[in-house]
Amino acid sequence: MSAGTPGKAVVAVDAMGGDYAPRQVVEGALQAARGDAALGVLLVGKTEAIREIAGDVPPNVELVEAPGVIEMSEQPARAVRDRADASVVVASRLVKEGRAGAFVSAGNTGAAMAAALLHLGRIEGISRPAIAVVVPTPKGPVVLLDAGANADCKPEFLAEFGVMGSAYASRLLGVSDPRVGLLNIGEEKSKGSQLYRAAHALLAETESINFIGNIEGRDLFEAKAHVAVADGFVGNMVLKVAEGLSEMLFEELKGAISDSVTAKLGGLLLRSGLRELRAKVDYEEYGGTQLLGVNGGCVIAHGGSGAKAIANAVRVASRVINSDVVEAMSRQIQKGEDDSG
Amino acid sequence: MSAGTPGKAVVAVDAMGGDYAPRQVVEGALQAARGDAALGVLLVGKTEAIREIAGDVPPNVELVEAPGVIEMSEQPARAVRDRADASVVVASRLVKEGRAGAFVSAGNTGAAMAAALLHLGRIEGISRPAIAVVVPTPKGPVVLLDAGANADCKPEFLAEFGVMGSAYASRLLGVSDPRVGLLNIGEEKSKGSQLYRAAHALLAETESINFIGNIEGRDLFEAKAHVAVADGFVGNMVLKVAEGLSEMLFEELKGAISDSVTAKLGGLLLRSGLRELRAKVDYEEYGGTQLLGVNGGCVIAHGGSGAKAIANAVRVASRVINSDVVEAMSRQIQKGEDDSG
Repeated sequence: MSAGTPGKAVVAVDAMGGDYAPRQVVEGALQAARGDAALGVLLVGKTEAIREIAGDVPPNVELVEAPGVIEMSEQPARAVRDRADASVVVASRLVKEGRAGAFVSAGNTGAAMAAALLHLGRIEGISRPAIAVVVPTPKGPVVLLDAGANADCKPEFLAEFGVMGSAYASRLLGVSDPRVGLLNIGEEKSKGSQLYRAAHALLAETESINFIGNIEGRDLFEAKAHVAVADGFVGNMVLKVAEGLSEMLFEELKGAISDSVTAKLGGLLLRSGLRELRAKVDYEEYGGTQLLGVNGGCVIAHGGSGAKAIANAVRVASRVINSDVVEAMSRQIQKGEDDSG
Repeated sequence: MSAGTPGKAVVAVDAMGGDYAPRQVVEGALQAARGDAALGVLLVGKTEAIREIAGDVPPNVELVEAPGVIEMSEQPARAVRDRADASVVVASRLVKEGRAGAFVSAGNTGAAMAAALLHLGRIEGISRPAIAVVVPTPKGPVVLLDAGANADCKPEFLAEFGVMGSAYASRLLGVSDPRVGLLNIGEEKSKGSQLYRAAHALLAETESINFIGNIEGRDLFEAKAHVAVADGFVGNMVLKVAEGLSEMLFEELKGAISDSVTAKLGGLLLRSGLRELRAKVDYEEYGGTQLLGVNGGCVIAHGGSGAKAIANAVRVASRVINSDVVEAMSRQIQKGEDDSG
């Protein structure tokens, strides 16, 4: 089948994962496949259901049977271990077997991570995989990691996140010699908790990255660093606060607009500017977050992804494959080589 | 002197602390004193310099000589120990001696905390004082603590922060039976780091507060809880991210407004709505943060405070005294009494 032609980027898509699966997931994956003939897509799930939605699939799409489904409420590690036929488990196995270079799932995040760890394993030298999110800012994208995989971290995890984030920014965002910052509550190296002070010292010793020291919460939106390193608790908190605050501000703005007729007119005139701004700061537009540190591509889409977000996630996965970021990360970690140029 | 009349709320103001000290600090303190004859103000610092700015002071203002100054760059604990004549040290001593009920400083935050600990001491049963900030949201104010005093916390500190925050919301914001939430990265009690899971268990056992469980970053701006408990690293990070993001969004909005003539017209019409919104979410309008857990009032104003912010901080300090919040907190901590009604 042409989906698996050698040399082609092939993405396995967990068709059964996500709030709007399988319909929106299948439609999104087809969109991405139709838009790029050089891309192969493996649609993994209940093939009968998928076929009903997809109809005749383009030549670069293939269906792979996986009757099991892992629900959002299940305990991820156990479900992945017990259910070898679950769509997310099969999708990750396709990457392990070399039939795909990356997999995409909008289902249970913990299950996607567990499946990736089970089948892909960690890159040698990486203690803990981390979730990386690309945060859009007016001054350019910033890679924030860990965005939630590890609530409890040791200093060495954070140092490794710095290396992984640097490879990611270099390969996927095309930044040469990315600036890596430690997200902290003060600029001086003596600032922060014990964890952050120790992580600062380790990052400063890491010669393969361009460590610029601590950055503060406000610096994140100034893109002072290309890569912002945090533990998974802080990284996740920062994302959710940013999400909640910007939603609140946009809601309030809408309220202010409809408060009076003149303001309403003003609002109409401003509408397109606002829409653009909102898109600029909406990180879900970017099509998924990535699990870094495993031996293969793993893109985690938001549970509420519609077809457009899934199509974006599949495109991100194909760039993950084509950019060879996993290999670059592995080299940078193992040899301490500077691979950022 | 009438500044010290018994029964009157007296606030000691560190006239030498802050980026715009002494001028803006003195002017702000005078504003507050002129606006409230029932308030006494002790202006602490170089009296000669203060007199030059103040001229004739109203009868409810008194000058107290304190020639020493602690700079922003100094190591706080040492400076406070070595310099008994520093304005912030003298201001805190006036509270210890009962000549004032609270002190206000816009200088070195660490020095204000060290001075408060040295002279006022901790409330019995409190392991660590915490900085509380009132975060304005469209659905009402939320007390966030710890906002930066303790970067490394133990679970029992967080449980005590819950009690202190509850007393604060009850006494100073007038909320009856305030809802206390633990700021975490998931709603279930099993979520978060070891610290947060253990703190959740302790807060759930604390009968003197109305603990509603975990709240997430986005819930903060929905005022799901009246009190949001976090360790000082996370609390400070959340504040700085919120500050940085809202500034960035307002800047971008201004940019969008001036991008085209029609959008500019829209912007003009929206201007007042925006100004209101910005004031609503600007926590510095609220006039200072408070150090909770010490035996006396301690209001910490922003280093960049102008006269208006100082006047607000002095008013907050007078409410701290009149609401008897320190006493209420002490009772709630020591007896486990429900003092929230």
